Amino acid sequence: MKVAYLGPEKTFTEKVTRCLFPAEELFPMQPIRKVVLSVEDGKMDRGVVPLENFYRGAVIQTLDSLVKCDSTRIIQEKSLKVVHCLGVLKGHCPIIKIYSKDQALDQCDDFIANSFPDAMTIATTSTAEAADYIARERLMDSAVIASKDALVKSGLEVMAEDICPNNSTRFVVLGREYAQPTRDDKTIIAIHPLARDEPGVLADCLNIFKALHINLEAMHSRPDGKKGYYFYIELNGHEKDRGVETALQAIKSSLDSENKYQGVVRILGSYANSHWKDEN
Amino acid sequence: MKVAYLGPEKTFTEKVTRCLFPAEELFPMQPIRKVVLSVEDGKMDRGVVPLENFYRGAVIQTLDSLVKCDSTRIIQEKSLKVVHCLGVLKGHCPIIKIYSKDQALDQCDDFIANSFPDAMTIATTSTAEAADYIARERLMDSAVIASKDALVKSGLEVMAEDICPNNSTRFVVLGREYAQPTRDDKTIIAIHPLARDEPGVLADCLNIFKALHINLEAMHSRPDGKKGYYFYIELNGHEKDRGVETALQAIKSSLDSENKYQGVVRILGSYANSHWKDEN
Repeated sequence: MKVAYLGPEKTFTEKVTRCLFPAEELFPMQPIRKVVLSVEDGKMDRGVVPLENFYRGAVIQTLDSLVKCDSTRIIQEKSLKVVHCLGVLKGHCPIIKIYSKDQALDQCDDFIANSFPDAMTIATTSTAEAADYIARERLMDSAVIASKDALVKSGLEVMAEDICPNNSTRFVVLGREYAQPTRDDKTIIAIHPLARDEPGVLADCLNIFKALHINLEAMHSRPDGKKGYYFYIELNGHEKDRGVETALQAIKSSLDSENKYQGVVRILGSYANSHWKDEN
Repeated sequence: MKVAYLGPEKTFTEKVTRCLFPAEELFPMQPIRKVVLSVEDGKMDRGVVPLENFYRGAVIQTLDSLVKCDSTRIIQEKSLKVVHCLGVLKGHCPIIKIYSKDQALDQCDDFIANSFPDAMTIATTSTAEAADYIARERLMDSAVIASKDALVKSGLEVMAEDICPNNSTRFVVLGREYAQPTRDDKTIIAIHPLARDEPGVLADCLNIFKALHINLEAMHSRPDGKKGYYFYIELNGHEKDRGVETALQAIKSSLDSENKYQGVVRILGSYANSHWKDEN
């Protein structure tokens, strides 16, 4: 089996992919859209991409790429706890600069604002590169945010551990099949109300879920680029569960009673609920 | 007046800030949380941060920082069209690598997937740095994504213009006052249903907006880190408009009938609707 994942190598996405597919051939690809298309085109059997980070929110590129697919769907999700640490050189001076990858700096913004309110942050290509850089250049006034491993490998001292607690990223596995119901599943749908464009369309959809006792886990609106909107909704239940099936049929009828439009309700995938549990 | 903005310098945020505050003293700060806190603490009079990019979606750090503030609010919004171009060296070979800042690579993922399906993308600290780098190193097999200005300054040829159309970023100005109603306003609120935690809470809120004919522009759910959720909702109207005031009061009563909780409905700001118009 051929497995694409969002590259480059040595990232958390690679770590998750190796854990899920230890014996398969792995192909790093960038950007997210390319991973999704490689599955859609049949060049790859599986794709692994991030769906949500606890601090940064939904990865909208993953949703926006999936909504354009005909056969690629989410078949599994897996969370990974991302532990960032702060590293410095031994005998460092007061810290006035903090180096790391953009995303790590964003995730640690609370820690930075509280502990180093006057430090400047500098974005680097990767967290490992940042650690190498301050070690190599002997920057005594600088700190770096990276994994404990990367800090230790570069010969830095760990000054603070796990500086953005609860920082998990949820990844999804893409394929061209359906995942079987497990009785504890989630489904992501995209609602695209093409026929009706008035206040209250979303209220009507949510009333249907409420009436059928379907719990929603997440929801995001998204401009479609043509003055309309997509609503991405993650709900509890499998698309083959009777309640979910009925709700989606009811929403479709409500939004497009004459059945004139394609893609008013799209299922981006049904998969076992990981409950953000990190199994590593 | 002292104005903080999300740094570093020479970015689109600085451009917008200079345009809005041509005569004021400007202070670049990172990350977003620091800009927001500098206004909340009273050190700065205004802060300028991104709220949404057309391709990347909502800037969740801005919303998450504002929801923790007591006195800082959004008082103005302004959109800026972000035009990315593809640059190469004269006499280049087939392109196998594309350099740019993470965010620009993300925004151009459709173009990259269609035009250079086999190229590798490499993230750099800034788009201008990427242009300098391939010019300096004479990388004949590489292209760079940056503004036309940056490409021309580095001596590169523009191979393709505006490679991610409609790419606008919406910035917001933060202050500690209220913006006056203009009859064409928007309001962002955060709903935090602390007392009620069942399917249908959100449906009830949206029904209230529907009944009062209030149009919603955007909505995002967001885990609060304690098994609950925030719902960020951007709606048409000013918080001083009677309909909006009534709706927010009704939602508060519905979610917390005994008035026991603080912050069930928070207003992050009311401001004139820019309609994503780029005035530059």
